[in-house]
Amino acid sequence: MSSLPPMMKMKMCFNPSCERDTKSETTYRKGWRLRTGDSAQLCETCASAYDSGRFCDMFHSSAAGWRNCESCGKRLHCGCIVSTQSFVLLDAGGVDCMSCARKNVMMAARGGEFDWLRKNPKA
Amino acid sequence: MSSLPPMMKMKMCFNPSCERDTKSETTYRKGWRLRTGDSAQLCETCASAYDSGRFCDMFHSSAAGWRNCESCGKRLHCGCIVSTQSFVLLDAGGVDCMSCARKNVMMAARGGEFDWLRKNPKA
Repeated sequence: MSSLPPMMKMKMCFNPSCERDTKSETTYRKGWRLRTGDSAQLCETCASAYDSGRFCDMFHSSAAGWRNCESCGKRLHCGCIVSTQSFVLLDAGGVDCMSCARKNVMMAARGGEFDWLRKNPKA
Repeated sequence: MSSLPPMMKMKMCFNPSCERDTKSETTYRKGWRLRTGDSAQLCETCASAYDSGRFCDMFHSSAAGWRNCESCGKRLHCGCIVSTQSFVLLDAGGVDCMSCARKNVMMAARGGEFDWLRKNPKA
């Protein structure tokens, strides 16, 4: 007997805000990882929104939990399983989007390199 | 040479919003885990707020990222390294505070037990 919840057996989109007529939908794709380890099954429209990182902008824009990236100001949906991979938590509070987080790590690494060159000028 | 940032060497409270005169402070305690693996060093006042789960209420009340527990309505600071252990992300979006998350897991487990008893009435 399958452990999948009835909704997924019926092949409905897992997105509660999906308004698409799923009776005619034939293609479903994997979305975010659920707490069981399974993936949310999404219709093509919602899966595309998820893949492109626009899901929360499209479906959760009026929900609470939005913060701005401390570096670039981009809106990030915090406290949401869908967007949990789209930002990093900063040590002193706040968040950086993944793009700025990567840049900041690279800048810090370069800073270390310059420090090393300054301390080893003949290297 | 220590890799600790200068602020921690000087034994100042890691909380940027701390207004206590730390020159006279002698006791520091560990707060949240930083991304380096070290812990934030907090003065006694801020450490007490952190230990009791009131840190974000006291210092981040006007910051963005707050959501309400879907079960009891408690305010939870999302997208904040300080409160990351105070809630769980729900599969369909939103958050539950740890207290409600534990209750809901127990209720689900009891539901499963009742299901088993219904299917095995002679057990």
